[in-house]
Amino acid sequence: MYKLPEKLGKLVNSLSKLPSIGPKSAQRLAFYIVKSSGDEALDIAESIREAVENIRHCDICANITDRDKCDICSSEKRDKRTICVVENPQDVISIESSENYNGMYHVLLGSLSPLDGIEPEDLRIKQLTERVGSEDVEEVILALDPNVEGEATAAYIREELKDMQVKVTQLAYGIPMGGNLEYADGVTLGKALEGRKELK
Amino acid sequence: MYKLPEKLGKLVNSLSKLPSIGPKSAQRLAFYIVKSSGDEALDIAESIREAVENIRHCDICANITDRDKCDICSSEKRDKRTICVVENPQDVISIESSENYNGMYHVLLGSLSPLDGIEPEDLRIKQLTERVGSEDVEEVILALDPNVEGEATAAYIREELKDMQVKVTQLAYGIPMGGNLEYADGVTLGKALEGRKELK
Repeated sequence: MYKLPEKLGKLVNSLSKLPSIGPKSAQRLAFYIVKSSGDEALDIAESIREAVENIRHCDICANITDRDKCDICSSEKRDKRTICVVENPQDVISIESSENYNGMYHVLLGSLSPLDGIEPEDLRIKQLTERVGSEDVEEVILALDPNVEGEATAAYIREELKDMQVKVTQLAYGIPMGGNLEYADGVTLGKALEGRKELK
Repeated sequence: MYKLPEKLGKLVNSLSKLPSIGPKSAQRLAFYIVKSSGDEALDIAESIREAVENIRHCDICANITDRDKCDICSSEKRDKRTICVVENPQDVISIESSENYNGMYHVLLGSLSPLDGIEPEDLRIKQLTERVGSEDVEEVILALDPNVEGEATAAYIREELKDMQVKVTQLAYGIPMGGNLEYADGVTLGKALEGRKELK
């Protein structure tokens, strides 16, 4: 069996730990890296180091930032009465890119998954109830992933916020825009029917 | 428009220069990296640095190695009378993994592509003719990619080796093993027909 040179093998091994990078892709990336001009590759190494050293979670919402408070939490222009609860910092970017939301966020850093040992105290749920209790929050929008873990997390948070003076809403489920009814799965169609709206 | 923290943006930017990593994948990887334990991410950075600093091309065949001469060129067990010509070091790994070849290699580091400005002198073709001229080589196997550039390169090398005492062969084209005739494209089927063999 042919063996890669040690340092290349080590690089393939490191890269294949990244999500959605299998052994074949890792090998391809590693070859690209050693083939590229050294500068470009060292630039990637340097960027990783800088990101690891500088990026942290916002003290308030746990979105990623390079300061104590993220841009959204620091902004004067955002509507502080609405908090959108998401699982991960990536979700903040997705919602921001819709350009349809001007409130605050609260990142849970995961979703409930007892099988993986992720319990409520592992998520930033307590910080959420504290924010709702101490700030002037009128609405909490649950924008969790539409899967078992996301729904369990949503149900748990709804229960936690039950006795607080705050409206709790959830993103609408339905047929995705630009989609095709023919290819929509049964569960999505069921949700779309359930959530149907009267046209006026 | 929401902007990523600077260092994270820089990391996304660096990663998206890698092959087959688009902006979305780069963002996903970058988030994974800043979310992972710092050690794991720094390990990737370190692996890149080490690979860039240690990996080089073999003096003889241009395969990748961490020494002057690659393992294959240094091996006493390989058949020095056969040279398999490939485009890239990755191809060496592919052929080695077939465990069907015990000769030497010669990596061209590319294929002829006048449109991209890649001319014969940019490839290691001269080094190949020198090897054939000076070593005791009986057969040169052209194992280039089955596309326009690969075929042009093969034709060029065949021409260069024409007057030398060496047999020049080419990998067989045909239906891939485990494939299905129904899904084979016309060109492949044509090649398979052209290369048909009499059963004895």
